[in-house]
Amino acid sequence: METIGAVIWDPYSADCPTRLVLDRIADKWTLVVIDELADAGELRFTRLQKRIGGVSQKMLTKTLRQMERDGLVRRRVHAVVPPRVDYKLTRLGESLGEAVCSIWLWVEKHFDDVVHARRAFDLRKRPVDVP
Amino acid sequence: METIGAVIWDPYSADCPTRLVLDRIADKWTLVVIDELADAGELRFTRLQKRIGGVSQKMLTKTLRQMERDGLVRRRVHAVVPPRVDYKLTRLGESLGEAVCSIWLWVEKHFDDVVHARRAFDLRKRPVDVP
Repeated sequence: METIGAVIWDPYSADCPTRLVLDRIADKWTLVVIDELADAGELRFTRLQKRIGGVSQKMLTKTLRQMERDGLVRRRVHAVVPPRVDYKLTRLGESLGEAVCSIWLWVEKHFDDVVHARRAFDLRKRPVDVP
Repeated sequence: METIGAVIWDPYSADCPTRLVLDRIADKWTLVVIDELADAGELRFTRLQKRIGGVSQKMLTKTLRQMERDGLVRRRVHAVVPPRVDYKLTRLGESLGEAVCSIWLWVEKHFDDVVHARRAFDLRKRPVDVP
């Protein structure tokens, strides 16, 4: 366990910042939103929803709100009728996208290894079944 | 959506390999086991459980079994009485540890930004509450 400022870097704790960020990243829609906005730049809500497909308005709203709260996304409201809302990655959101990239690259590079390992594991007889 | 071999790289699908790996990494205990084994090299089950603390034998067994199945961990059974079992990261497990590192670094570097963003967000009045 490591303490930086008032923050407890303890992966066993549900409050550990790394755990909180991993939980956020591992959220299916956050990952997809980062991908889409990194690709398209700025998008209005309806366009983003259409590009993603299969996400409810409620779920996308919740995801974007969490991401805005974390400073990953910038939300811009245009004073028109009906109101138009655009979303864009902040620099912080872009940098998280880059960090997550190493995981994508790892999976692309090693996915076959994982599949082979699973196959071998499932075929193998376990001689002694202790922990 | 991208197809590599027979694998569908579709983050919207629950079967997308990246999602599967993210789910695995985001698993609290997997992260902790990678950390401990990267630190200590090889550890026997009981020693690993003691170092982690707060993990049940059942949960640690399940985690290690999944990791072994994915080829991230090598399990070595010694033919002694009672049987002794050692665990060690494979090269694959080590490389995943390195990839996850970029996320840790991002969090350490940007955690304050996220905290400030949250504070600002919570203080701010939302003028137009549309999606």
